[in-house]
Amino acid sequence: MIYITRRETFCAAHRMCREEWSDEKNLEIFGKCSNPAWHGHNYVLSVTVRGEIQEELGFFINLTILKKIIHERIIEKIDHRNINTEVDFMKGKIATTENLAIAIWNELKPAISEHGASLHCVRISETENNTIEFYG
Amino acid sequence: MIYITRRETFCAAHRMCREEWSDEKNLEIFGKCSNPAWHGHNYVLSVTVRGEIQEELGFFINLTILKKIIHERIIEKIDHRNINTEVDFMKGKIATTENLAIAIWNELKPAISEHGASLHCVRISETENNTIEFYG
Amino acid sequence: MIYITRRETFCAAHRMCREEWSDEKNLEIFGKCSNPAWHGHNYVLSVTVRGEIQEELGFFINLTILKKIIHERIIEKIDHRNINTEVDFMKGKIATTENLAIAIWNELKPAISEHGASLHCVRISETENNTIEFYG
Amino acid sequence: MIYITRRETFCAAHRMCREEWSDEKNLEIFGKCSNPAWHGHNYVLSVTVRGEIQEELGFFINLTILKKIIHERIIEKIDHRNINTEVDFMKGKIATTENLAIAIWNELKPAISEHGASLHCVRISETENNTIEFYG
Amino acid sequence: MIYITRRETFCAAHRMCREEWSDEKNLEIFGKCSNPAWHGHNYVLSVTVRGEIQEELGFFINLTILKKIIHERIIEKIDHRNINTEVDFMKGKIATTENLAIAIWNELKPAISEHGASLHCVRISETENNTIEFYG
Amino acid sequence: MIYITRRETFCAAHRMCREEWSDEKNLEIFGKCSNPAWHGHNYVLSVTVRGEIQEELGFFINLTILKKIIHERIIEKIDHRNINTEVDFMKGKIATTENLAIAIWNELKPAISEHGASLHCVRISETENNTIEFYG
Repeated sequence: MIYITRRETFCAAHRMCREEWSDEKNLEIFGKCSNPAWHGHNYVLSVTVRGEIQEELGFFINLTILKKIIHERIIEKIDHRNINTEVDFMKGKIATTENLAIAIWNELKPAISEHGASLHCVRISETENNTIEFYG
Repeated sequence: MIYITRRETFCAAHRMCREEWSDEKNLEIFGKCSNPAWHGHNYVLSVTVRGEIQEELGFFINLTILKKIIHERIIEKIDHRNINTEVDFMKGKIATTENLAIAIWNELKPAISEHGASLHCVRISETENNTIEFYG
Repeated sequence: MIYITRRETFCAAHRMCREEWSDEKNLEIFGKCSNPAWHGHNYVLSVTVRGEIQEELGFFINLTILKKIIHERIIEKIDHRNINTEVDFMKGKIATTENLAIAIWNELKPAISEHGASLHCVRISETENNTIEFYG
Repeated sequence: MIYITRRETFCAAHRMCREEWSDEKNLEIFGKCSNPAWHGHNYVLSVTVRGEIQEELGFFINLTILKKIIHERIIEKIDHRNINTEVDFMKGKIATTENLAIAIWNELKPAISEHGASLHCVRISETENNTIEFYG
Repeated sequence: MIYITRRETFCAAHRMCREEWSDEKNLEIFGKCSNPAWHGHNYVLSVTVRGEIQEELGFFINLTILKKIIHERIIEKIDHRNINTEVDFMKGKIATTENLAIAIWNELKPAISEHGASLHCVRISETENNTIEFYG
Repeated sequence: MIYITRRETFCAAHRMCREEWSDEKNLEIFGKCSNPAWHGHNYVLSVTVRGEIQEELGFFINLTILKKIIHERIIEKIDHRNINTEVDFMKGKIATTENLAIAIWNELKPAISEHGASLHCVRISETENNTIEFYG
């Protein structure tokens, strides 16, 4: 069993809030991250998949395929976008990095399985100091 | 003459656009960075000041003072904010990193001069791949 | 189950030694890290906690609380300090990064549990090349 | 149980190919990484070992010994070398990072066991975006 | 006057040698970097251009154009290539990073001038520890 | 004219103080950096030298020589040492990074000149956020 991790980046706007709460309530719970005029980040997304090496090839998933899956399913939908209002797989969810990691997991899992690999971990760094990991 | 650089970070939303242009025109000129629903970045701001060492102290500006100036004049106004709509020193300007560097220069220069140092460079990295420098 | 990691830094002096050994013996066992006149590092501390997302909030522990716990219990006691002589939770222990990781684990665990989360990992990088992890 | 990770770097040339395949077939399967005229990387190798702290010492393996093992068994044989043609432990294997991680694991495991520690993970980053991990 | 820097990366093989010298002579002068079986690097290329902001746009060169110039003239010719044998603009030159910086300068200068900007600096990091800069 | 920068690191203890001042006075002027029990850093030292390429060689100073100069004159004297009490070229000086940059400049300049190159800049990062540069 071997693990391969692909690192990608995207830039996006978001705010943390429950839409049914007032701005004051959101500010109390989520702090400055709830700013109604938005803020944003350079998110770093690391996707780890695992599998058994095919001896003929020396790998188990072609990195080009892994990149293509991540780009088509995630990056093209979220890069230079507003996570709260423009990203289909985040509709109706609070735009925390925790929820984002789970949503990206759900987007990637079937496509990666189709190529004979298993999704192992979705890791997102919102800043160099804050990182979320989800293992399913 | 010696140079000291302080690195700070802030997270903000922005879009590149001229407000009097249509979204289509802005898209044509500024590309995906003109998304009307905003996007954002973890900006890295590096401020370089220069001066002559005071022999009694072994430095020419106390780092605590330099940090305080940058925080009070820049970080508190821009961190977790929307650069286009919420930052006073960017009002009426296109929210490019180029304009941001010049505006930050103008905000910092008088306060740094008051402490016997000269502002030398404002450098802003929008992403790890794109960096702007302004030397006045 | 989701994991969140907070990265903090602190600067401290230390030396690796057993106080009852001679400087020569300490030098033989611990090498240049046993220098009696001290040396120091910019330590990078990463604290990982895990928990179940509260659906109403989209997270399981408020990052502000996590930061506050790490600052009050660790950073304020160790930053710009001498690990061997000034840090209460290291008293009587050899000031290796291994022992430091375990001591920080013990300091953090109860406070994190009080907030409904579980401490998962304490990771300390002494330099960019040397990293210790402790999982309890 | 505690984990220590040592990070080392090496620069090497390689190409991904099966020697019995034509250049066209290799290009089809391995893409530009199969360039017959070679290309290369600054590889980052992180070796994680685990063990129980010896209370007398505050560690379980001397970092100097760990570095020496990695240098003698890996770095001296691969740094500034051609992985396909000059590295004994890669002879007859496709020069993927996946195979390299497994081969390095096999080279390091006995030497680390001799010093009372267990090899836990071999991680290799080929670029800042592509990382392989092997846990045995 | 404002400066913009674009960072790009490429992976390539090279060796430092004068072809008319023996391997022994090359080894004596260039050390392990002269290995006849090649080695390689993840090169980091930073291109700095300067110009006067066009007030209507808030910038002086569109980053998309700058990226396109660097990719068409440099990255497509050198990425996953052998610098000594496959890169037209390095033909007949010793494949040092110093010569590479000058050659890249010469490739980029006319194209950047055509877009109303001036090339200011070509910086290449061969490893995180070794960096070359050329200012024309 | 071309510039080459070599990056090295060292770990050291220091405190900022004037010895003839009381601890209280030092605390007032230098803050927590004046802690009498010391603290320390992983310093990053970048040395930039400039010269004219020798066409026969494709460089103007052999990197091996540059490394040797920096190691013999600086790293061996300061790594894992106390800057205030153990480093000859800092004797009698306040152990600020500013003074350290000037002292390192003076140590390196003659040796670099002997090899037909000119010292251009000594840059020291005390932390990732604080950097000093001296150009002579």
